[in-house]
Amino acid sequence: MDLLNAQVTIVGMGLMGASLAGGLRGKCRCVVGAARRAESIEIALARGFIDRGTTDLAEGVREADVVVLATPVRAILRQLPEIASLLPGGCLLMDLGSTKGRIAAEMAQLPGHIQPLGGHPMCGKEKSGIEVADPALYQGCTFILSPLERTSQEALALGRALAEGVGARPLILEPERQDFLVATVSHLPYLLACALVATADATTSQDPAAWEVVATGFRSTSRLAGSDVTMMIDILLTNREEVLRALDTYQSQLCEVIRLVEDGDEEKMREVLGAIRKTRREMYPASQQVIE
Amino acid sequence: MDLLNAQVTIVGMGLMGASLAGGLRGKCRCVVGAARRAESIEIALARGFIDRGTTDLAEGVREADVVVLATPVRAILRQLPEIASLLPGGCLLMDLGSTKGRIAAEMAQLPGHIQPLGGHPMCGKEKSGIEVADPALYQGCTFILSPLERTSQEALALGRALAEGVGARPLILEPERQDFLVATVSHLPYLLACALVATADATTSQDPAAWEVVATGFRSTSRLAGSDVTMMIDILLTNREEVLRALDTYQSQLCEVIRLVEDGDEEKMREVLGAIRKTRREMYPASQQVIE
Repeated sequence: MDLLNAQVTIVGMGLMGASLAGGLRGKCRCVVGAARRAESIEIALARGFIDRGTTDLAEGVREADVVVLATPVRAILRQLPEIASLLPGGCLLMDLGSTKGRIAAEMAQLPGHIQPLGGHPMCGKEKSGIEVADPALYQGCTFILSPLERTSQEALALGRALAEGVGARPLILEPERQDFLVATVSHLPYLLACALVATADATTSQDPAAWEVVATGFRSTSRLAGSDVTMMIDILLTNREEVLRALDTYQSQLCEVIRLVEDGDEEKMREVLGAIRKTRREMYPASQQVIE
Repeated sequence: MDLLNAQVTIVGMGLMGASLAGGLRGKCRCVVGAARRAESIEIALARGFIDRGTTDLAEGVREADVVVLATPVRAILRQLPEIASLLPGGCLLMDLGSTKGRIAAEMAQLPGHIQPLGGHPMCGKEKSGIEVADPALYQGCTFILSPLERTSQEALALGRALAEGVGARPLILEPERQDFLVATVSHLPYLLACALVATADATTSQDPAAWEVVATGFRSTSRLAGSDVTMMIDILLTNREEVLRALDTYQSQLCEVIRLVEDGDEEKMREVLGAIRKTRREMYPASQQVIE
């Protein structure tokens, strides 16, 4: 089965699902949207994201070659066993959940006629919902794929083609390794941003001048605090150990930074902060810096 | 003296000084650039930021109606007493330093023929130097003005006109109040970003896949860690008490967030993280969110 001949059914027409649908349109035989609310299907049809849509999950997946669960992590965990019996033999069952350990464990329990594949596209927006969906959302982003031992090479190739079809770069990663990495590079920044907003709210916000002096720095650093709460709670609850470990390391690093300011040793500050600046610049080569 | 008839001399042709000069060009009688390096003057002239330039400070300020010190905070502290004897009577002497307490104390010691006015424009870039200067840099930003008791209404009006001349919104703020506010909304975010980069560097960076999975969230949250180190050290050393106080509050708020993840109480998480999200959204009304 290649992508061009496949029927892809996407379950969940939020930001991620609807954007994926829109990006896949024309790249496969048929894009079907399945959602609980009829209104979401209407919008997806009106905006040309899907070929057809349904609020009947069983109907939506019955003839699918690929099914993608585009719902929050704990909804995915509930949906996996429910949906299994509805799928035709050989169907590729993917998800877009931000944490992979528990989903992989659940996928391992699926009946043998299903080909499971964990997926996690590293993109998103601060706002959620189909209203802000964009078929170009996945372009240029890394799309993590976490195959299970039982996942066939053919199924993996189809998942890869799907990621590439929406302009993303597939990256094969084991579930544990992905959960460890995203705890630090994705979930930790969210919590730091939350603590920053809470700090400002507890102190400077009392001064009416506070928001007039907010520079672009606070804006960037606090941006993630505006993320969708339901999605983030799902992530934090299903990647708790790794997130707590990342927070622990962060606390130690923050203490180092505090000691640096307390000591006020200029040479030491120049050395440490200079090295950090260099590291940050290496993370994002100059060619990419304009879009920050 | 109104701005249109004034000679404005800007000392320091880095990002902030050269951008201010470019923004003022044509809005006053003459913009003079003073810098240590002849090369900076050449670039400023070539890019049309100044009417004329000099590497001789005394010559540059001799006939000035306004002098703006656009150097790092501790350079300003050194320059204030040096420059005082060179200025004509009634000259407005401003600065663009990011911390105001120590500068205000130094300004209070200036000879009586000078009109001192602290200034702090809430804008900047991650990169420094005249190469990235932009006459539009100040447009729409808040420009804090901290007059001393001895500052005349006329001098303050001229400072206000200068800020408005480059498209900024003047905001009168006492030095202590500005230092308290910016410690939380500007200096703290820099240090959090540094600790985040250090955390990633100490853990996930060991994995070659780490930078492939970095999403836009890490990019925003860590952005300030790329700030100019000399400027930031000056800021941290001259606003140390307020920065340490802000760090202390932040540590408490971070502990609250950690406890929230540890406890894993979904309702409590929804309440706390939801309130933080609401606060963040109120800080930046929807109309502004597109540019993040």
